[in-house]
Amino acid sequence: MRDPILLTPGPLTTSLATKTAMLHDYGSWDADFNRLTASVCQQLLAIIDPADDEFVCVPLQGSGTFAVEAAIGSLLPKDGKLLVLVNGAYGKRMAQLTQMMGRACAVLDAGETEAIDTEQLRSYLAAHPEISHVGVIYVETSTGILNPLQQIADIVHASGRRLIIDAMSAFGALPLNSRSLRFDAVIASSNKCLEGVPGMGFVLARRSALMEAEGNSHSLSLDLHQQWTYMQRTGQWRYTPPTHVVAALASALEQYQQAGAQAGRLARYQQLCDHLLQGLQRLGLRSFLPAEIQAPIIVTVHAPAHPHWNFQQFYALVKQRGYILYPGKLTEVESFRIGCIGAIQAADLDGALAAIADALAQMGIPQEQ
Amino acid sequence: MRDPILLTPGPLTTSLATKTAMLHDYGSWDADFNRLTASVCQQLLAIIDPADDEFVCVPLQGSGTFAVEAAIGSLLPKDGKLLVLVNGAYGKRMAQLTQMMGRACAVLDAGETEAIDTEQLRSYLAAHPEISHVGVIYVETSTGILNPLQQIADIVHASGRRLIIDAMSAFGALPLNSRSLRFDAVIASSNKCLEGVPGMGFVLARRSALMEAEGNSHSLSLDLHQQWTYMQRTGQWRYTPPTHVVAALASALEQYQQAGAQAGRLARYQQLCDHLLQGLQRLGLRSFLPAEIQAPIIVTVHAPAHPHWNFQQFYALVKQRGYILYPGKLTEVESFRIGCIGAIQAADLDGALAAIADALAQMGIPQEQ
Repeated sequence: MRDPILLTPGPLTTSLATKTAMLHDYGSWDADFNRLTASVCQQLLAIIDPADDEFVCVPLQGSGTFAVEAAIGSLLPKDGKLLVLVNGAYGKRMAQLTQMMGRACAVLDAGETEAIDTEQLRSYLAAHPEISHVGVIYVETSTGILNPLQQIADIVHASGRRLIIDAMSAFGALPLNSRSLRFDAVIASSNKCLEGVPGMGFVLARRSALMEAEGNSHSLSLDLHQQWTYMQRTGQWRYTPPTHVVAALASALEQYQQAGAQAGRLARYQQLCDHLLQGLQRLGLRSFLPAEIQAPIIVTVHAPAHPHWNFQQFYALVKQRGYILYPGKLTEVESFRIGCIGAIQAADLDGALAAIADALAQMGIPQEQ
Repeated sequence: MRDPILLTPGPLTTSLATKTAMLHDYGSWDADFNRLTASVCQQLLAIIDPADDEFVCVPLQGSGTFAVEAAIGSLLPKDGKLLVLVNGAYGKRMAQLTQMMGRACAVLDAGETEAIDTEQLRSYLAAHPEISHVGVIYVETSTGILNPLQQIADIVHASGRRLIIDAMSAFGALPLNSRSLRFDAVIASSNKCLEGVPGMGFVLARRSALMEAEGNSHSLSLDLHQQWTYMQRTGQWRYTPPTHVVAALASALEQYQQAGAQAGRLARYQQLCDHLLQGLQRLGLRSFLPAEIQAPIIVTVHAPAHPHWNFQQFYALVKQRGYILYPGKLTEVESFRIGCIGAIQAADLDGALAAIADALAQMGIPQEQ
């Protein structure tokens, strides 16, 4: 039987070309690998279309959270204060890691069901001159909410503050152009919309901001300034790189270019998401978010309001049929999630929808109409 | 042409079985992957032969340095003080990361050509009651020096201090038994003597020490206590795991067991190292370390004292013939390094020795006799 198809927010189903790129061992010090790293960085930078060399790419070992912590720890001065715009688990995590490293942090919490309120942001910044930086999650993976990034960036820039964007579940698919959007750093990882495998994150940082970051970091491993200066000097990662993960990302980026880069990826994901939403509706399953804030990345679905509902059982039944779903992350609503990213196509979603229908039938849960 | 053979301290040449284990995508939340993680942790723990459940395994995303920083940041209390036994770059790095996280740290520096002086350690501990923990590098990869771990552990234990061992280049090959050696934590990574691919480290920590570690960490990403409690509760990694790297390590550990585990690996590496040392001697190349402190992991070689010597050129010529060497890391002696670990055999070393002889001849450097 084939491997299950991952309908998750990443790690996700990758193409065979991406996986077979890992069938080579590279020396971490060797020029062949340095070229691979340089090519990855160049392609990642190209996605934000930087003017001249206004931005630099700093790859980092570890998961996306490591890269978020590295960006905050390096770019937020020790006497700075970060305002985190929270509407879900990832916003909360950004605030938590900022507090844990001993930096000042405030939170604007919009709950977990609505996009960030830009008017509230504007007045908060006006009333709190001590805020030096603002952190925002582009797509809050815990629900799939798309935040109004352009308006947020405009407000932050107009108020003279600096913006740090966690674009984990958005980067590569949703628009993020450094010429129209003002920010100091955008953070993402290898294993989401770029469709690489997990094991590295990266920060695209405004060069001037990173140059000021020397000595800020609370952590040697997570010091982006050191990571960057070392790589500039040597072409190498500062500590052992995840060589196979880098090779997979280089291949994934090649496929990304061939498939029309950001515009192509967004079009495909939008089609997949629409297809999924329509199919869910046919099954009588209600998606949680209104269409205007639904990012085409992951869909949160209301669990059927039926006494037989049991996520573990449902998950296992759908998995038996070859599809891996994702649990909900809402605190007050019983839900589950279905990702629509990765090396998948509409037929895979059809298969998953059929598996979901079968599973519900087997559980004795009738389709609502 | 085949991929070059890596004669490096890791990332190294892995077996095809290890690499092909990465041809599957796992859901990070899925039971199949949780089983893989649990099996890896269990096998890693078995290597130190713990009594009952005295030790726990905490895997961590990132390179080995991330795991070292996580171990120190989590296990050293905020009012503790670490004494680092330094005889090379990795000891220095442990001290640096401790200082950077704002913890108290002292250093006993033995230079870069000798093993740690145990008598000096004994008297230092007697004279400095403020030292709570001692950190040591089992095999200092920057030269290949084997430190006298048993004596160090005995002294640290007798003085009532706690020992943290960076066993990066030793773990899995050199003896490390928790019944005969007293320590609180041993740190290593996937991509050295276990012959996995790079992208994760792990800490085998004394359960009682880790239980006291709550709230110590300077970093959310690197908090071993949180990483462990989350994994205990859910069976999952706290943040996105490097799924393919974990799958490769699971396969590598299976092969490790089949090849006689630690004893088998040590025997093979010792044979390879002896074979390499003899071959170098035949070429008139002098190894840097005396035999009694040479670990069978990586050999530091004096660069030929000849005006034509140029490491970059030498490296390129040897690479053309299919072998990747490693630069030296000594500050005052011109050297290079040759690893003798990985999925390689004596014939590969013969090939590399022939390539080295050819390269030297091509550079016009005669073999010294």
